[in-house]
Amino acid sequence: MITVTLLGAGNVATHFYNAFVKSQNVSVNQWYNRNLEKISSYENEVAICDDISKLTESDIYILAVSDDAVADVSTQLPFTDRLVVHTSGSVNVHDLDKKNRRGVFYPLQTFSKNVELDFKNVPLCLEALNKKDMPFLKELADTLGSPRYKINTEQRQTLHLTAVFVNNFVNQLYRIGHEISDIKSIDFDILKPLILETANKVQTVSPYLAQTGPAKRNDKKTIRRHLKLLEKKEHKEIYELLTKSIKHTHGR
Amino acid sequence: MITVTLLGAGNVATHFYNAFVKSQNVSVNQWYNRNLEKISSYENEVAICDDISKLTESDIYILAVSDDAVADVSTQLPFTDRLVVHTSGSVNVHDLDKKNRRGVFYPLQTFSKNVELDFKNVPLCLEALNKKDMPFLKELADTLGSPRYKINTEQRQTLHLTAVFVNNFVNQLYRIGHEISDIKSIDFDILKPLILETANKVQTVSPYLAQTGPAKRNDKKTIRRHLKLLEKKEHKEIYELLTKSIKHTHGR
Repeated sequence: MITVTLLGAGNVATHFYNAFVKSQNVSVNQWYNRNLEKISSYENEVAICDDISKLTESDIYILAVSDDAVADVSTQLPFTDRLVVHTSGSVNVHDLDKKNRRGVFYPLQTFSKNVELDFKNVPLCLEALNKKDMPFLKELADTLGSPRYKINTEQRQTLHLTAVFVNNFVNQLYRIGHEISDIKSIDFDILKPLILETANKVQTVSPYLAQTGPAKRNDKKTIRRHLKLLEKKEHKEIYELLTKSIKHTHGR
Repeated sequence: MITVTLLGAGNVATHFYNAFVKSQNVSVNQWYNRNLEKISSYENEVAICDDISKLTESDIYILAVSDDAVADVSTQLPFTDRLVVHTSGSVNVHDLDKKNRRGVFYPLQTFSKNVELDFKNVPLCLEALNKKDMPFLKELADTLGSPRYKINTEQRQTLHLTAVFVNNFVNQLYRIGHEISDIKSIDFDILKPLILETANKVQTVSPYLAQTGPAKRNDKKTIRRHLKLLEKKEHKEIYELLTKSIKHTHGR
């Protein structure tokens, strides 16, 4: 049985907690947060704690705290030579206090408060400064059923940036689609199957090969008409820039 | 039994053909294309034809031809007062020759040559200049199991534009994600679950509420670091413009 101590009470911490509870081979020893209220609803299932000096022994300490807090919390840990990982996409593994064995357990996924996620759809990016800790991190990922990848800090920071493109920016394009269709009283539901299919396609085909549409065809007539239809300057700018980008990609 | 004549041999025509063949209540009378070769592999299942003057009688004629060819082909039809629809997102319904009853049967989806699509995931946008033809178009959509919407030409043209944002532009962001991760030898597979979850989320939550990330939080430190990581000028521009757009949307 793997024993885990969880630190933090945000989305990532809560999703990890729920996943560990479901796993057969993991036991959450203790859940720490500096503000106990946020985790008080779990007090009947797990030992909760707001005094970092009272942390008990576990196989791993998972710091699922905000990026800015990682270094500070790692310094406050009242022990040495244990395995301590953070869960951040952008924090350097060396920012963890070196008094402990350091690593990263970064879930590359978008977590929402009330949407349950199957961890088999949560790739885990693993890093361990001490090579001997890597098999353990892999084992922990496996108990969650997660795909896992060995990723160093530089790669992880690039992944975090990439995630902004394929998640936040993509979502903003959905938002713009919502805005534009709202103006003409078009039900956003009409667009949902297309949104899903676009994401589905690149599961098996590269985005390069999956591309279609007026920009790829360099269909100037349609592009001109679309730009005329757009009312907001910002939407026009985005249309122009992404059209240019597609043209470059496809040698137009 | 509804009888259909199909005109054109592109992706849309072929997907419609395959869906009609599967449907219990539709029979494809004839499949026309000016170049017979493209549909010759179907000659044992359906009457194929490259002479537009030899079209036989059907309940509906579906012009799944390129945008530029719609008007011309509709003029060449050797009959009058029959129901003729096109399948284009951008062509005005009035561009069809008025000698026939005119309408639109626009599938809002991305079709690939070798990817089979369940038509229950293909919303159909219906338009009929003669109100009396609408129930028939609805019935035809229902035989395919497709969600269907009454959409006028102005709305349809806006939808077509919107589809460019949520499909072509989104796919280009996937492409950029692929490019950026390739440079650091990161397997694009790591990003696929995030891509799917981002699309899944907006099936039930509005894109506005689904948004997360550094731009929404106005996390200047992360934004600065990301811009520094980006090597291509075009990627920087896209990052800056979409970050600005998210900030505007979320009042930052």
